[in-house]
Amino acid sequence: MTDTVSGTTSDTTNDPTTATPGAQRRNAAPAAPDATANGAHALLHTLVDSGVDVCFANPGTSEMHFVAALDGVPAMRGVLTLFEGVATGAADGYARMAERPAATLLHLGPGLGNGLANLHNARRAGVGLVNVIGDHGTDHVRLDAPLQSDIAAIAGSVSGWVRSTSSPERVGADAADAVAAAHAGQVATLVLPADVSWGDGGRAAAAPAPSPREHARPDAVRAAADALTSREPCVLLIGGDATRAAGLAAADRIAAATGAKLLVETFPTRLERGAGVAQAGRLGYARDVADHQLGGAQHVVLVGARSPVAFFAYPDRDGDLVPPGARVHPVVGRGGAAADALAELADLVAPGTTARTAPAARPELPTGPLDVGSTAAVIGALLPEGAIVVDEAVTSGLGLPAATAGAPRHDWLTLTGGAIGWGLPAATGAAVACPDRPVWALQADGSAMYTISALWTHAREGLDITTVLFNNSAYAILRGELAQVGVSGYGERARRLLDLGGPELDFTALARGMGVPAVRVRTAEELADALRRAGAEPGPHLVEAMVPPLVA
Amino acid sequence: MTDTVSGTTSDTTNDPTTATPGAQRRNAAPAAPDATANGAHALLHTLVDSGVDVCFANPGTSEMHFVAALDGVPAMRGVLTLFEGVATGAADGYARMAERPAATLLHLGPGLGNGLANLHNARRAGVGLVNVIGDHGTDHVRLDAPLQSDIAAIAGSVSGWVRSTSSPERVGADAADAVAAAHAGQVATLVLPADVSWGDGGRAAAAPAPSPREHARPDAVRAAADALTSREPCVLLIGGDATRAAGLAAADRIAAATGAKLLVETFPTRLERGAGVAQAGRLGYARDVADHQLGGAQHVVLVGARSPVAFFAYPDRDGDLVPPGARVHPVVGRGGAAADALAELADLVAPGTTARTAPAARPELPTGPLDVGSTAAVIGALLPEGAIVVDEAVTSGLGLPAATAGAPRHDWLTLTGGAIGWGLPAATGAAVACPDRPVWALQADGSAMYTISALWTHAREGLDITTVLFNNSAYAILRGELAQVGVSGYGERARRLLDLGGPELDFTALARGMGVPAVRVRTAEELADALRRAGAEPGPHLVEAMVPPLVA
Repeated sequence: MTDTVSGTTSDTTNDPTTATPGAQRRNAAPAAPDATANGAHALLHTLVDSGVDVCFANPGTSEMHFVAALDGVPAMRGVLTLFEGVATGAADGYARMAERPAATLLHLGPGLGNGLANLHNARRAGVGLVNVIGDHGTDHVRLDAPLQSDIAAIAGSVSGWVRSTSSPERVGADAADAVAAAHAGQVATLVLPADVSWGDGGRAAAAPAPSPREHARPDAVRAAADALTSREPCVLLIGGDATRAAGLAAADRIAAATGAKLLVETFPTRLERGAGVAQAGRLGYARDVADHQLGGAQHVVLVGARSPVAFFAYPDRDGDLVPPGARVHPVVGRGGAAADALAELADLVAPGTTARTAPAARPELPTGPLDVGSTAAVIGALLPEGAIVVDEAVTSGLGLPAATAGAPRHDWLTLTGGAIGWGLPAATGAAVACPDRPVWALQADGSAMYTISALWTHAREGLDITTVLFNNSAYAILRGELAQVGVSGYGERARRLLDLGGPELDFTALARGMGVPAVRVRTAEELADALRRAGAEPGPHLVEAMVPPLVA
Repeated sequence: MTDTVSGTTSDTTNDPTTATPGAQRRNAAPAAPDATANGAHALLHTLVDSGVDVCFANPGTSEMHFVAALDGVPAMRGVLTLFEGVATGAADGYARMAERPAATLLHLGPGLGNGLANLHNARRAGVGLVNVIGDHGTDHVRLDAPLQSDIAAIAGSVSGWVRSTSSPERVGADAADAVAAAHAGQVATLVLPADVSWGDGGRAAAAPAPSPREHARPDAVRAAADALTSREPCVLLIGGDATRAAGLAAADRIAAATGAKLLVETFPTRLERGAGVAQAGRLGYARDVADHQLGGAQHVVLVGARSPVAFFAYPDRDGDLVPPGARVHPVVGRGGAAADALAELADLVAPGTTARTAPAARPELPTGPLDVGSTAAVIGALLPEGAIVVDEAVTSGLGLPAATAGAPRHDWLTLTGGAIGWGLPAATGAAVACPDRPVWALQADGSAMYTISALWTHAREGLDITTVLFNNSAYAILRGELAQVGVSGYGERARRLLDLGGPELDFTALARGMGVPAVRVRTAEELADALRRAGAEPGPHLVEAMVPPLVA
């Protein structure tokens, strides 16, 4: 389903196994500046020469020259989405797996607004992308036309880098700067006025220089080593690139040698898991679980993770999860070289220790009516080798980590920023990044409805995505949260706002309406059959698993 | 389907035929301040006592106390939406018809982002609403938890009024100020920290004083009268409340007496039309049409309308639509007393003239395969008395104004801000506001997909909405825009980004998946049958009309 690669303008491809990140490709020949090219051509050439060769788009009138220019730059793959939140979530999922940024193409302030929630998730993940926003022509702004709004203010709330490009001559250099910012893990928003896009004299630019990365300072490593070897209770909390196999192995050696409790941050950007990979539990989302995991610690060592805080405020409880009196030792930040820091730490405190890895183990295939436990067991029993799991299962997914711990090696992507409606879009991007790997989107019902049109893009692009849609007819997590925030009893009118029944959503009809084959299942046997069939056929599938909510 | 009205806390009802706007209800007894009430209760009591008794909600954890408080304030009707853009668009449609604001309930910055596009449309319409955004607890903000973002920056881009309320004691007064701003036609965003919501000592406030309204200055009326009677070519461009029956009648008298060309702004907020109402054409969206309509004018008199500008910039054309050399005479702004100003003007320039009104006339029911023309004729032939038409038909709707001009009296709501994905949500709000009137949502396919989950709310609330979904399998308007912006030829890769085929969307499956009965039609006869059946049954329906795109 990928486009044919042209060698004339770029040596990049859509195959992540051969492509190298743009930041490392500085010596690739840049597209020659072309006085006859318009700004849109210069932008596209600069992006592909910087290794950004996929654009998740939902264009409008201001972006028509960008769209038209796609015909002249075949190395750029344009992927149409029917809603901007699908485009931004796809760019997030893509970058997590391809390890290089994608571009988006959005229409003015309202289009950016529609994409904002998943840009928020990308920002919280430290995932870079080049967010291209078409704007009115420069001269049109004085007229305050109906679609005008304060793009800079909206973009500023989610972007590490924002620039409005002022001329076709500048667009290449600005795009290269945007790519550099994206390589540094930022949402880089490039505002492209329509007249810059259509204007002549577009000048492409060479790929940007590699972005410097934060490395752990020696004294921070030393202090962490001292804490870990103090014989006082210690938690090692890891995130960023430390949740890939190498980082996990180093972290496990440290934990084994020192007795520290190893935890992965609650919502890792990309967690490598399964048989042969060192395991680590995740810090709980539920406040009581997290308190229990961290309770008694006198040191909290942070490698690629932020100091732990509660997701939400609850009455009469401190939101800071660090136990009173414990000391926090930050070694390196979320976007820094966390796996490298763990390797250094392991050399200091665990020189003779080898990492333990998860043994291959799958649950027995259960039988009978589905519930959260049996659904997880079926998934654990059948998850294919090399799968990419996109996890927005929320309460229906509580059994998944245990059930899949010994499955064949896979990657697990999670909802880093808490803004729901991320799963189906992120699966889109992950599948575009890795066309040879199966993507399993494990998706809650309420969350799915925010960006349900992602299924259409799954179908159009023929993506190998199996969506397991957990239909429990409720915002079940909110029922739990009601109790957490101190509401002890509530009535029918409140309950109605947390209930997705009446009418019950039929996700098989929704999927078929967007061209995705779908089946509804109620038993473990039916779920297993449906997953096997989905795996045997190319293209996307949706399996709607009817599961009772955990919180009634 | 409306909730039972309780007389205990408020005399407001959900019935727009008996309710009076809050701003006129200042003498109603306010809810007694209650030291045992929390902030959420105080907020709800203040809203209902101010005449805001519908809340379109998509809540999360930070809003749980607001949700729980609904049980104690039965006069507030909570309407669940599955996406925030449905909530904000519904509040817009509601206010246009109820003539008083609704509230929304959205979750933090990402929820506000999801609602932004339709807030943009409301802002551009001058439609007021009270936009309640739950925030983290005040003490939680220092922790920069995953869902935190710059709510004020995002809200500022669409709101005329923004405030974060600081304590349960303040929440009533802040809510009253928000209602006052909404009555003045503003998006009023009230940020409600979770601890303010759950905190004791909530104090409700009385309804706000009526908002002063801009009235035309006598010298502006005089100058406009001079222009209109100058015998030089003159355009009278009207908007705001001038597009209701009284304003249209006055404007028609002026046009008849002076020979001025009467035009309604391109996208009126609420246009009263049909047999017995004075008619006025709308300024064209298409640049060439608008240039033709305004060409030769030496005066442009603005009553409740802004000076005309092109929607988008196009190469080598000025975006200002006022003909060179013409003088612009602003009489009163979009939110001002425009109908009153027209009455004054008519008394000056057309004292002996009576208004002409549209005669009752319907098209013949056509037969044969559907196209844009025959679809419009069927709609014109069958549009029921008192209908509320929510028009997001885009290119498929070009025949509608002519075909419905002599239909029974109805209201026509349009996409004021150009941010698509407004129609199905706005229909939701209009139907909640006017449960006794049929709502016809005339909806393009591409636009529908941004907020398609509105159909679920149509079903849950049993709303009398008939959606005519024009399926032409394309972003047809963008094909036209490509030519407008100077792209003469484009290839398959560009075309693919404007094409909604492959896979074809099946809106009957989508509607049924959300509990709305649906049928696909291909001929005029089938469309007429389907519309008659929909009118005969209670609750929502969707009729998918397969029409070829105007621009191939």
